[in-house]
Amino acid sequence: MPSTASPAPAASRHYHIVFAHPEPRSLNGFLRDRAIAGLGEKGHVVTQSDLYAMQFKATADAEDFPSRDFADERLIYHRESGMAQASGAQLEDIATEQARLLAADAVILQFPLWWFSMPAILKGWVDRVFATGFAIGVPKEGTGQWLRYGEGLLAGRRAMLAVTTGGREAQFGARGIHGPIDDLLFPINHGILHYIGLDVVAPWVAFQTTRLTAEAADMLAADYVGRLLSIFDAAPIGYRSENGGDYDDRQVLKPDIPGGTGFAAHIARPDQR
Amino acid sequence: MPSTASPAPAASRHYHIVFAHPEPRSLNGFLRDRAIAGLGEKGHVVTQSDLYAMQFKATADAEDFPSRDFADERLIYHRESGMAQASGAQLEDIATEQARLLAADAVILQFPLWWFSMPAILKGWVDRVFATGFAIGVPKEGTGQWLRYGEGLLAGRRAMLAVTTGGREAQFGARGIHGPIDDLLFPINHGILHYIGLDVVAPWVAFQTTRLTAEAADMLAADYVGRLLSIFDAAPIGYRSENGGDYDDRQVLKPDIPGGTGFAAHIARPDQR
Repeated sequence: MPSTASPAPAASRHYHIVFAHPEPRSLNGFLRDRAIAGLGEKGHVVTQSDLYAMQFKATADAEDFPSRDFADERLIYHRESGMAQASGAQLEDIATEQARLLAADAVILQFPLWWFSMPAILKGWVDRVFATGFAIGVPKEGTGQWLRYGEGLLAGRRAMLAVTTGGREAQFGARGIHGPIDDLLFPINHGILHYIGLDVVAPWVAFQTTRLTAEAADMLAADYVGRLLSIFDAAPIGYRSENGGDYDDRQVLKPDIPGGTGFAAHIARPDQR
Repeated sequence: MPSTASPAPAASRHYHIVFAHPEPRSLNGFLRDRAIAGLGEKGHVVTQSDLYAMQFKATADAEDFPSRDFADERLIYHRESGMAQASGAQLEDIATEQARLLAADAVILQFPLWWFSMPAILKGWVDRVFATGFAIGVPKEGTGQWLRYGEGLLAGRRAMLAVTTGGREAQFGARGIHGPIDDLLFPINHGILHYIGLDVVAPWVAFQTTRLTAEAADMLAADYVGRLLSIFDAAPIGYRSENGGDYDDRQVLKPDIPGGTGFAAHIARPDQR
């Protein structure tokens, strides 16, 4: 597994799409295919992890550590994960996904919004691949701090969610019944992607995606490809960095940091960055 | 599968615990065991779905519909789910879970917080068990509305999340780096449990749960059992009802409904209920 990324020349970037939909003939499959084609036409390298096609193991459990015997010792998953990571003993499916992330300049998670979050197979990809020593529990040498929330082994790469939902945009608005889409996605964008050090750009969200005409699907795909092509020019969401001076040693925002309370407080305005 | 609940007498209630931890010898396993014992001592009926012990299938896919052939037809999961539900053709693991929910007076989802959400195996339980015609897509007869957000086949039952995390409480506070715990859990509490009609009470959350002493674990378990015992006396979170008059026909809060924007707007103050 490569331990460092090999950045492509500025004109050609490496996109990695993690795709979590059970049906390649779906709108999501169409969008994925068009993304791969559209990025390829512009000279970019595109790889994908098609989790359903790979029958990716979703459940983090003792079977992830086949060389270990838990008859007399209890399984502490995050500890085992760290030991496997440190000794190069991760299962091949986990190691492969980690290598793909390290090789990419941009990571796209593309999925249908199921119960206001990721399909289980994608959550399981996060649970298993984002191992201790790889995505969490990485010390910042000589500081007693962690590489976390803005720093990490994957720092310097872009990340974007690409989400479809049958719901209408108004339902996901400031006073829509589901709650604002940016807040619903905060646990993923901030709690997972920013946590592991990626530069997260605003999600691409397609609403009311059921029974689209071919023409509407074409337009949607063009919009998606456009967003993907501009990902390196887009300003990342201004999530604050854990070790950037905004947080005290309990990881609470210092009193002089503006932003009020809640999720929004963790996003610095452009003039605060 | 019973189509209606059989409410137990007031003195004895039926609790169903959905448990999602890979290690029965963990703190979570200890808390689960103590919950079952403590509720039983008070004369309550307790059942559980131990998802790891059951090796519950986490991934919603075509294999959930073995009598269907998707060679020439694409899989639309939520449609197949509804057809299986209507014809009594759900897989036995799904039908069993639905029956357990219908038989319960209170549903507890107990899990460690992984990446600010549920372990994949529990998300998969939601994705698969909360089928079309059971938890979503249930019409409100004669109205053109849906039984959703406060109404549904499971209405009248209590629900509570029981969550453990190694993180410190301050990190999950109003200005803590992870974001407020109630906001992180909103997509589950509101978007899943309230959505399907359950009366959701405030979550029971245990912070800093790594390496507890036996005495601390005992105290924690006693606190958990106490919360479970009082679940029918606790006021549910005041989530607004979709068909209760607060939302317009786009499911957006009407202008005269107070509460501002974001998740909090969907919680009515006690004097507004």
